[in-house]
This record gives sequence, C-alpha cells and structure tokens, in this order.
Amino acid sequence: MSMILGLDVLDTTTSHKDKALFTPGPLNTSASTKRAMLRDLGSRDTEFIEIVKDVRSRLLGLGDGHEEYTSIIMQGSGTFGVEAVLSSVIPQDGKWLILINGAYGERMLRIADIHKIPTSVLRTPEDTVPDTAALREALQADPAITHVAVVHCETTTGIINPIEKYGKITKEFNKIFFVDAMSSFGAYPVDLAACNIDYLISSSNKCIEGVPGFSFVLAKIETLKHTEGYSRTLSLDLYAQWKGLENDGQFRFTPPIHAILAFRHALVELEREGGVTARGERYQRNYEITLSAMEAMGFKPYLQPDHRGYIITSFYYPSHPNFDFHRFYELLSEKGFLIYPGKLSHADCFRIGHVGRLRLHQVKGLMSAVQSVLKKMKITLTE
Amino acid sequence: MSMILGLDVLDTTTSHKDKALFTPGPLNTSASTKRAMLRDLGSRDTEFIEIVKDVRSRLLGLGDGHEEYTSIIMQGSGTFGVEAVLSSVIPQDGKWLILINGAYGERMLRIADIHKIPTSVLRTPEDTVPDTAALREALQADPAITHVAVVHCETTTGIINPIEKYGKITKEFNKIFFVDAMSSFGAYPVDLAACNIDYLISSSNKCIEGVPGFSFVLAKIETLKHTEGYSRTLSLDLYAQWKGLENDGQFRFTPPIHAILAFRHALVELEREGGVTARGERYQRNYEITLSAMEAMGFKPYLQPDHRGYIITSFYYPSHPNFDFHRFYELLSEKGFLIYPGKLSHADCFRIGHVGRLRLHQVKGLMSAVQSVLKKMKITLTE
Repeated sequence: MSMILGLDVLDTTTSHKDKALFTPGPLNTSASTKRAMLRDLGSRDTEFIEIVKDVRSRLLGLGDGHEEYTSIIMQGSGTFGVEAVLSSVIPQDGKWLILINGAYGERMLRIADIHKIPTSVLRTPEDTVPDTAALREALQADPAITHVAVVHCETTTGIINPIEKYGKITKEFNKIFFVDAMSSFGAYPVDLAACNIDYLISSSNKCIEGVPGFSFVLAKIETLKHTEGYSRTLSLDLYAQWKGLENDGQFRFTPPIHAILAFRHALVELEREGGVTARGERYQRNYEITLSAMEAMGFKPYLQPDHRGYIITSFYYPSHPNFDFHRFYELLSEKGFLIYPGKLSHADCFRIGHVGRLRLHQVKGLMSAVQSVLKKMKITLTE
Repeated sequence: MSMILGLDVLDTTTSHKDKALFTPGPLNTSASTKRAMLRDLGSRDTEFIEIVKDVRSRLLGLGDGHEEYTSIIMQGSGTFGVEAVLSSVIPQDGKWLILINGAYGERMLRIADIHKIPTSVLRTPEDTVPDTAALREALQADPAITHVAVVHCETTTGIINPIEKYGKITKEFNKIFFVDAMSSFGAYPVDLAACNIDYLISSSNKCIEGVPGFSFVLAKIETLKHTEGYSRTLSLDLYAQWKGLENDGQFRFTPPIHAILAFRHALVELEREGGVTARGERYQRNYEITLSAMEAMGFKPYLQPDHRGYIITSFYYPSHPNFDFHRFYELLSEKGFLIYPGKLSHADCFRIGHVGRLRLHQVKGLMSAVQSVLKKMKITLTE
C-alpha cells in the first residue's frame, strides 16, 4: 500500500486531471495560481516581505478599506483565524453576542466557551436569517455585551445574512462588530465602512481562489489598536501579528510562503476578471444553471428564494427509496465531480458549491452526471 | 508599484532562479516536491484521506514509533504546534518544567505563561546544554512538576541538547516528556521509545524538506489518550485533532492540502536518499565544508566543538571596523545566497544553515562569495 502510494506521488508531478470540486472550498484554482508556488523564498528576505506587503494592500482594496483598515494574515485554516479574533480582540470583562443560524455560528460559540469568554446567543432556525428587531432587543436587554459576531454566508445552508443591517444596529449601540465572511468575501461586495465592520475574516482557499494555508482579517485600526495584551494565546494573537507585520514586514512565526505566493497570483487574476462584481456574476451564473437543472430534475432547494446566495446551495435528499447519498456521491465522483455532504441539524440535505475556477462545461457536466446517476440508481423524481 | 508587482507575479509561473537558502527553514526544496502541489483535491475526498494516512504512517516510521505512537498533523507554523502541545496535553493542575538554553525554550515559557499554566524553569547559558544533575535536582525538589519540555536543536545557536539523557531521568521520575525537534527531526536519528519521548514535534519546512504550512506531533498513544478535554483552545486541541484523523481520516478544519502533497513527496525523496542517516550525512558534509572554510577565513564559531550540530552554525561577527552585518547580508544576497541573522541575547552572531536541498556547488559557492564579499568590504581577518 505504502509503496503504491509512493509511486503514485511521483506521477502527480506530471500533468494531472483532477476532479471538479463543487464544494465550499478548498476549491479549484487556476493552473497559473498553482504554478506560482514553484519557488523557494526566504521568509525573512526582502523579496518575500514585498510580496506580503502587496497582498495585504490588495486585500484592503477588495473591502474598500484603504484608509481606516489594515489586513492581517494568520497561519492555519479559517477556524484558526476565527479563534484568533474571538479570543484576542475582547478584554477580560468583554462579552460576545453571537448571532447563530448554522454550524459556523455554533462553532463561534464553542470557541468563546473554551476560552471562558462570556457570551449571549441569538439563535434562529437554519433556514432563517437573524432578526434585526431581536438583535436590537438583545443589545438593549444586556448592556454587558461589548462585541457582536455573525457569519455572512452560513456555509451550512448557503444562506446570506444581511450584515449591513446588523452593522447599523451594532453601531447604534456602539458595539464592536465582527463578520465571518469566510465563504463570501471576494464574491459578494462588502463595504467595510458602510457595514460598520470592525473585523472581517475570510480565508485563502475560498472565493479569492487561492490554496489553503491561512486566513486573513480586515480590521479597523481604531478598534484593533486598543487590543494589545487581550490575547489568550501566543500563536493566535491578532494584535501582535499585526504589529509584527507593521514593524518589519515579517511574520512573527513561519508563514505559509507558497500559499501566499499562490494567493498573490489569485488576487491578480481576480482583478483581471473584473473584481468582486465580475466574480460574483460568474458564480451566480453557475448557481442559476445548477438550480434550474436540479429543479427540473425534481430536486428541492432547502432555502426559500430570498435567503439563497450563489456560493453554495443545499438540496433536500429526494424522498425516493433508492436514494442513498453515499452511493450518489461515489457515482458522481467516479464521473469526476465532487459534491459536498450536508451539515444541517434538522434536515437531510446535500450541497453543491458554485465557487472556484469551474468552467461552464463542468457545471453543465455535473448536471448531466446527476441525471445519468439518477437513472443508474433507478430514481425518477418528476412524474 | 502594485502594477509592477502584478506583472512580476506572472513571471514567477515560468522557471525561476531562486536564491540558495542557508537558513534554518523554510529552506530549498526539490523541484519535484514543489510540483507535487500542482493539483486540486477535495479535503474530504477519499484520495486526500489516503494521502494523509500515508503521510502519518511514514512519519511514524521516521521515529521508529510504529506500535506505541501516533502522528498528528497540525495546521499553522511550528510555533502553533508547540503551543498545541504545551496548552492541550497538560491538565489544569499540571506543571511544566522547561529546560531553556535559547530563544525557542524561552518561547515555550512564554506560551505556558500566556495560558497561565504553572511552570518551573531550568535555564542555562546559550552555549551550554542543560545539566542532567540539575534536571534530577529540579524534579526532586518540586513534585508538582508533571511535564518536562526541552528543545533538541536550539536553532538560536545550533546547539544539540542530549535528549536521550533527559528522557531517562524524566522517566525515572515518571514525568511526561516533550521534545521540540523542530529543526533536527529528519536529519538526526531519534528513537522515540529509547528517549522515553511522549510528544515530539517538528514541522513541514525543516529537514524533511517540504514547504511551510503545518507542524506534526509524534505522540505516545498511552499518554495522549488521557488528555481529552485538557485543551485551552479549539484550533490547537491535539487530542481532538488526533481523534478527528482517527475517526474518519479527515481534519477537523481545512488542512493545507498543497503543503501536505509536497510533504508526501518529500518523505518519499527522504526514503530514496537513504533515510535519516543519509540525510544527516549530507548535512554534516555541508557543515564541515562550511566550518573549515569559514575558520580558514578567520571566522570563529560561537559553540565549542562538542556542542555543535550540523543543522545550523552561529559565527561571531568578526571584530573588524568595516564589518556591518546588514551590508554583508545584502552583498551575499546579491550573489544569490541568503544567510540568517543571529538571535543570541548576549553575543553578536550570524548564522549559516546546512539544511535543505542545497547542492555541493552551492555550499562551496557561498564560501567563495563570503571571501569575495570580505574583500569588497575591505576586511582582512587572517594575518
């Protein structure tokens, strides 16, 4: 087994036909983004320092945050970055209000709990966006709340939460506002100032179409600069990470150099595509093709139309005795298409992502594959 | 500026002549290790799960730890992994004894302090290895100590600490033993059981010659299995990370897929080279060539011979009025060689690394470059 894998490894150095990833990320990236990793750079050398500076500046541009904001790259996955924000921007006597309508909101709560940070929770069903009136009431009822956190696109369902509305209310009450835009940033326009965002997080392997390896935070300098010493960890200390990057352009600890090289290339490609708007339009087209084909085949989307986004769509398992998700997944995988399992607590769903460097023929190809797999599984839904 | 960098980015997709890295890592990697990253894989798909399984198994083989040990990959840099061990394998009423003779030992202490974990410290000068008799006394004097931590190769100086001796004493007192083998593992043979090691850590971008993106821990299962719920964080929870990998082969949170692909290839190349012994011999040859040439030019190594290792060597700044480290560094960099600044608290040194995919002509090339740079700086040391 080990030896077979050993040989297989060496084959990957030649060109390789990978499966198309219809997942929320890590996703398909362009060949040239991956080729940008074919280098060896010193992590403390001037060339790499210039690259990091360039990446940080381009990121700010995506959020229209040139003046008041800064960007901070944090090693590890998106969750590492979320934990960095939750555990290092709030003082000992602070309290998080977390708006939850899915697994990623629940994960925020779990992180705060592990760090023994006081929390209050506003929980709504997974097919519903958190209510603005309820947010106002919660802030009125509990003056101990200092910070508010919400997920922009809850990947659990694909629902898009109205962050601009929450930001306005949060500002009315003079609270710090944190948006987890992990799976939306780069494909949904976000105006940091207009949304009153203090901290926004996303990761390298989502809509900017880089490879996994780090998350990044866009932070309002006026808020961030008061957080020195708040961190409950060394590695995930957002303030110290920022100060390190500002002081000499270097990371405190070894950065994922190759993932950053790929990311810089991906940012250039995003600009060439026409920026966030053009990318959003491309993903929306993938979404529309997928939705109409899936509905025509008899699949039902989980969310009501006004809550749906174009990042990822949850579909109910069809109520047919022959449907078995594992087999459905495997048969699609054999045809070269990877879809994504569901993550809902109360409904059996699977998910199809619309993001990444997917070509139109692949999106249409998945739909044909679904049709032929249904046939193979002897499932008829529309009659 | 931004546009110039933008064009530059695209040039990197063609072949590129990078500088030779005489650093402790990230270091030079083989072209085929980098090419192993030219793929898009789903992080939860069977192919990637098999790759992770293979990497974990090969890592165990390197430490001769097949039966009693397990290996755990942790996202982020080496420091993230060190923090994972320090903060998630010790109970609330535990106490770390940290043996310190350099910056990485000091960093361990800082991490334990941030997590408010009680510590005791055995500090020795940076040119000296921690004394075994002092270790025994410290353990005798303070029965509250439950865990002992030491760095194997202190990259601060390049000193090699005798971990097997410490392991024996630690076992006598029935304490848990943690070795930070960040910059030595893969180039110095380590027999986990013979050294009585409970946790050993290293990272992807050191002597195994992969790219940066994660650390890995080799852990004694009998010790690890009792640590459930000890973690002070979500992301850096070593037990939960292990359980996740064991349960379904998947990471709890997005893994650095491409760094893992590169690493698997690097592990295969390490085996082909002849394993840890052969690699150690290659690095030792680099070290010997460097040391003799540097001494011939009049440079003095910081450490006494019996403490020196073949990972990295610290040299005193020459006591010549024309010597300026920044200029020395820049002139060598212009010639295509990156050396490393010093990190000592009490002496002005710079460092030259001997690790990574360096060719013999590059090692000799650096020595010629040092000679010509000295000439250019009008520095004569041997007279």
